[in-house]
Amino acid sequence: MLKEWTQEEDGLDGAQRKQLLKQYRQTLERQQLQVKEAGLPVIVLVEGWGAAGKGDAIQSLIRELDPRYYSVLSMKPPTEEERRWPFLKRYVQCIPPAGKLLFLDSGWLDELVRERLRGDLSEQQFLRGLESARMLERQLADSGYLLIKLFLHVDERTQRERLERLESGRDTAWRVTEDDRRQNRDYDRALELFSQGMEETDPDWARWKILDGTRRDRARLEAARWVSERIGQALEKRETPPTPVRNWELLPMPELSQVPLDACLEEERYQKRLKKLRKRLGALHNELYRKKVPVVLAFEGWDAAGKGGSIKRLTSALDPRGYEVLPIAAPEPGEKERHYLWRFWTRLPKTGHIAIFDRSWYGRVMVERIEGLCAPEDWQRAYDEINEFERELTDFGAVVLKFWLQIDQDTQLARFEQRQNTPEKRWKITEEDWRNRKKWDQYETAVNEMLQRTSTPAAPWYIIPAADKRFARIRVMELVIQALEQAL
Amino acid sequence: MLKEWTQEEDGLDGAQRKQLLKQYRQTLERQQLQVKEAGLPVIVLVEGWGAAGKGDAIQSLIRELDPRYYSVLSMKPPTEEERRWPFLKRYVQCIPPAGKLLFLDSGWLDELVRERLRGDLSEQQFLRGLESARMLERQLADSGYLLIKLFLHVDERTQRERLERLESGRDTAWRVTEDDRRQNRDYDRALELFSQGMEETDPDWARWKILDGTRRDRARLEAARWVSERIGQALEKRETPPTPVRNWELLPMPELSQVPLDACLEEERYQKRLKKLRKRLGALHNELYRKKVPVVLAFEGWDAAGKGGSIKRLTSALDPRGYEVLPIAAPEPGEKERHYLWRFWTRLPKTGHIAIFDRSWYGRVMVERIEGLCAPEDWQRAYDEINEFERELTDFGAVVLKFWLQIDQDTQLARFEQRQNTPEKRWKITEEDWRNRKKWDQYETAVNEMLQRTSTPAAPWYIIPAADKRFARIRVMELVIQALEQAL
Repeated sequence: MLKEWTQEEDGLDGAQRKQLLKQYRQTLERQQLQVKEAGLPVIVLVEGWGAAGKGDAIQSLIRELDPRYYSVLSMKPPTEEERRWPFLKRYVQCIPPAGKLLFLDSGWLDELVRERLRGDLSEQQFLRGLESARMLERQLADSGYLLIKLFLHVDERTQRERLERLESGRDTAWRVTEDDRRQNRDYDRALELFSQGMEETDPDWARWKILDGTRRDRARLEAARWVSERIGQALEKRETPPTPVRNWELLPMPELSQVPLDACLEEERYQKRLKKLRKRLGALHNELYRKKVPVVLAFEGWDAAGKGGSIKRLTSALDPRGYEVLPIAAPEPGEKERHYLWRFWTRLPKTGHIAIFDRSWYGRVMVERIEGLCAPEDWQRAYDEINEFERELTDFGAVVLKFWLQIDQDTQLARFEQRQNTPEKRWKITEEDWRNRKKWDQYETAVNEMLQRTSTPAAPWYIIPAADKRFARIRVMELVIQALEQAL
Repeated sequence: MLKEWTQEEDGLDGAQRKQLLKQYRQTLERQQLQVKEAGLPVIVLVEGWGAAGKGDAIQSLIRELDPRYYSVLSMKPPTEEERRWPFLKRYVQCIPPAGKLLFLDSGWLDELVRERLRGDLSEQQFLRGLESARMLERQLADSGYLLIKLFLHVDERTQRERLERLESGRDTAWRVTEDDRRQNRDYDRALELFSQGMEETDPDWARWKILDGTRRDRARLEAARWVSERIGQALEKRETPPTPVRNWELLPMPELSQVPLDACLEEERYQKRLKKLRKRLGALHNELYRKKVPVVLAFEGWDAAGKGGSIKRLTSALDPRGYEVLPIAAPEPGEKERHYLWRFWTRLPKTGHIAIFDRSWYGRVMVERIEGLCAPEDWQRAYDEINEFERELTDFGAVVLKFWLQIDQDTQLARFEQRQNTPEKRWKITEEDWRNRKKWDQYETAVNEMLQRTSTPAAPWYIIPAADKRFARIRVMELVIQALEQAL
């Protein structure tokens, strides 16, 4: 789409453009308050060629805006450290909260094209990266984000001249990077890649707007016009992406009621087994650290099913420098104002590290569903969103395991009562636990649906019979060890 | 202190130690809840030689703890990116909120000794770093943090043997870094530096506890004993550091009531001047980006004094990739639970960038003082804390400027009324503005005291007569330009 593009004449003279630009900026100034009031999160992605004027376009757009309501972020090439997380993480991390605008100075398109040009990405990896970006854009739009995408275009000669001019200035030479020079040298190939990238990420609800970077006043005007029109439209009516049809390969899972709970392990064998597994796990932890494999473990289960105890036995085998336990409670205000997966994206382990989630993103399809904390379409959409999220992790090379600790109602009651009657355990039991218990059937329905719809070969669910705590703890360790051995 | 240290015999056998360790761990398990309830933030700093068993000590300490109430953080040598902020920033960033424990696997002592051994720090820089650490520890303790400091000690031969053993294992070799080898090679010098560092940071209220890393069971027991005793003591009675006597070199500042407000600038000259200054500022921004100078600008002033307008004129000259405007409102819950400077430390600009604070850390000695949002001793202590904070920035090479935009009560009233009567400006004026206005005299007293006590040669206050907005905007730009020119 970039290759065929030509700028139509607008029949305006310089003074008229200036006048119009001023009007659009005033519109944007008004809109930022409406955006705030409507709680609309807006991402303005400004992509384009090196030296095409991305910075200038952003500066022009924010001219009349109040800094309390927007931020500008310039995406540099990822550092070595940043490469230790999946590609999308840097972008998810910076999404704005409800009611704020984020101006992103170059983004995933630039990153993918640059890495492809460098030869750091294969054709297939480039396409996979575009798929990730498309997925993220759709997930964001689905949850109410407005995405506005601009591309600053310049021809090869103009770019070359600008780069040369920048390079010759003492205070501007640092702005020209090796990647810029490569882009200009391989202009045709970069054009091809930008074009392809834009075509693959150009749905009706988030179209690209190409701007003529060779004519600054036109680019500024068109940018302000496009952005204010998109915001105006979104304030009137939110355009949501059509639901795509996806066929996930899913593992067959039993109904919870079918899970036998009589497995148990006596103390002596338990201690012996634990000691052996601990040693093995410790060795594997060293190895995965060295081989830089990231590991994500999610623990879910009934209240008092023994998640904490299982996690403790696992971590007692691990070097505290290489893992983190992340207890997940209700989202904080800043978290509620963003996409619900944001707080998990930002807590992912880097390569070589283990993140153990004590409760997880599955809250969306359990407590949030049952307590009405999100709309029905939100949790219904979440199964796919979660599969996509986990696919980003496993494609990156992460080991992802999910445990459901299963007990029956009587066992839970006995444990609740025991907690209530033991002074130093009493803090573990709250009113909420008793309330949740009354909704057992609703939860069981939700959990069954969750297990059916999100157990993929790459990120499987394991139902752990947990009526006997010793058995459950050993089982979890065995499964973790088995998965790590397979991965290493 | 490390050099003369010897471990006294405790007269216990292995079984007794094990039994005692178990008891201390149970104490810690109980204490974590008391810590939670008391809202006590606890930092357990575990320093020591490479391969002395820091990880093992931490693992032993957290054995019975609930992961919801603590976190473990392993401090790696700073990355290139992290070096773009003052040394302390990495440590301030990770301080725990009230009611939580943080276990820090090596910290400022290790970093300073390592860099000094490498030759990356001069003797003077090493001492300055220790001074920074001492300052941070005192500020944290002053605001209610409990600091517990352990040092794992091993002799040269034991360390060498352990490093060799690690290096010979396929899965453990990666654990031995060049810094570890250097530490062992230069053992005597490292011993000297550790000793010196500990002596310089060993006040009564945060003593070092040396542990014998050659005897794992002793180290575990002593660590658990020391930590649980310190926590127990702090839960009973918070020990606060004595107030040090500091003599800041301060610039003489006029009383606000003495500031003439009749300066003004007519439109035509304003526009001409603005254009010229904008160009100059843009060029300087490029230069400071290239020379990697960080810049911190703090804007304070009466409501409606024109902070926003002055900031907008400044930023219109800047490349949006190189600055950030940080509007400071009341602290969020996560911010309230930490040291009040935390939210500013974490928002500092990196080298080459400009951070513009629209209101700032001076809220402590203005609104927080007047509205009783902190105790009198908190804001009284804050003048020194702020001077120390800013000194960390300027010593790192940052340009720090602070502007007080001054208007009189009549001007404010006129502007309030104008805002009230202009529909698109009405959002700018709130009930709170009117309430604050009634406390003008109280604020004036507080502001005068603030200006007198925090205007240092390295981080001066500028009082800007702002009855005429044009004059104020130009004056601010001129002062910023002047400061940048001096710095570059």
